[in-house]
Amino acid sequence: MRVIELSSTVTASNDRDAEALRTRLNTEGRLLVNLMSSPGAGKTTLLRRIVQDLDGRLKIGVMEADIASEVDALRMEEAGAVSIQAHTGGMCHMDAGMTELALDGLEGEDLDLIFLENVGNLICPAEYDTGAQLSVMILSVPEGDDKPLKYPLMFEKSDALVITKTDALPYFTFDREACERRVRKLNPGIRLFPVSAKTGEGMQELEDWLAAETAALKKNKSKAGERA
Amino acid sequence: MRVIELSSTVTASNDRDAEALRTRLNTEGRLLVNLMSSPGAGKTTLLRRIVQDLDGRLKIGVMEADIASEVDALRMEEAGAVSIQAHTGGMCHMDAGMTELALDGLEGEDLDLIFLENVGNLICPAEYDTGAQLSVMILSVPEGDDKPLKYPLMFEKSDALVITKTDALPYFTFDREACERRVRKLNPGIRLFPVSAKTGEGMQELEDWLAAETAALKKNKSKAGERA
Repeated sequence: MRVIELSSTVTASNDRDAEALRTRLNTEGRLLVNLMSSPGAGKTTLLRRIVQDLDGRLKIGVMEADIASEVDALRMEEAGAVSIQAHTGGMCHMDAGMTELALDGLEGEDLDLIFLENVGNLICPAEYDTGAQLSVMILSVPEGDDKPLKYPLMFEKSDALVITKTDALPYFTFDREACERRVRKLNPGIRLFPVSAKTGEGMQELEDWLAAETAALKKNKSKAGERA
Repeated sequence: MRVIELSSTVTASNDRDAEALRTRLNTEGRLLVNLMSSPGAGKTTLLRRIVQDLDGRLKIGVMEADIASEVDALRMEEAGAVSIQAHTGGMCHMDAGMTELALDGLEGEDLDLIFLENVGNLICPAEYDTGAQLSVMILSVPEGDDKPLKYPLMFEKSDALVITKTDALPYFTFDREACERRVRKLNPGIRLFPVSAKTGEGMQELEDWLAAETAALKKNKSKAGERA
């Protein structure tokens, strides 16, 4: 587990930097997934489960972005992932330049799938393209079904929404149908994965999707190699 | 319920604006409480309970800050509070200028205690003085006991921490002792209120404290008036 200190590299060129990073990752055949949520929605717990379940199928790396502490990177190492802790210097989000710096810290590892666990925040991370090929958002049951109404951009920008802590549904007022309707109104094409990382419910579908996306990227890379 | 559209008034003078607003509020004998938390920690549910419990003792106003939607202000009106919905124009926090604009929208109401329900975010709101006399932070049990390690500034800046959803303690791994120890290390003087707005556990202590702070402010105002 390494720790890297980052400060903002935000410039008007973030979109260009992000596009360049995405091209680089596509060429290398590595899938980067930008994972975003509120603080405490269960990003790290979900990732631990994914790493353990996909052990042997995929080599996974995790970049943990936080303002302070190393707790998440340590938890990921325990689970068997290659991990790096990135400190954002107080910044509320990761941008493409910061993401590339953190990726450089994982150089030398032969990884198939890399997660960027973004800073816990439903607002700022949605505004900055990190260069990841996929953006995945987590909403946990205890947060409530009204979040799509209040933080629309995050739901619009995400390729998939993972609804976590479904094991807590009996204890909270959470209207899953209303939530999904609100999400689909903002983003009709979004993939939805209701899961409990605790009981394992729904994890298979999510993991199969991640494995398929990783394989598709590798296939495209080989094709590009053949053409070259 | 009124809706006001705000955009940022952030300037280098935010601290000065905040100080001026605080002086104005002290002179008027009105207590403004800046309530901050992650999305879905239960700010609105807690406020509904406070408004209902303090009905008849205090006249309460609520300023709801969100990027979009009016759901929170409508929920507060149902509970019997005077409320205004402020839209932040995509901004991840409220500053003193925005707070004063929202306050102006409550003019003409004879309020004792006003809550600013800040944007759901553990990072940016901690960086901007709103001019409120008290800052209160909410951490909900499902978010986890490690949040003080990851978002230290918010815990450092708050006068009180309300630990919400304590009724959910049996269903989540949340070490209350470890959490409180981490919080006190960052902020030894912070007041702690573990509550469940659902069952009412702990609400009395929190409400008595708010009522006492409101009364103390009014008393200081009368004293200042006698001296003048």
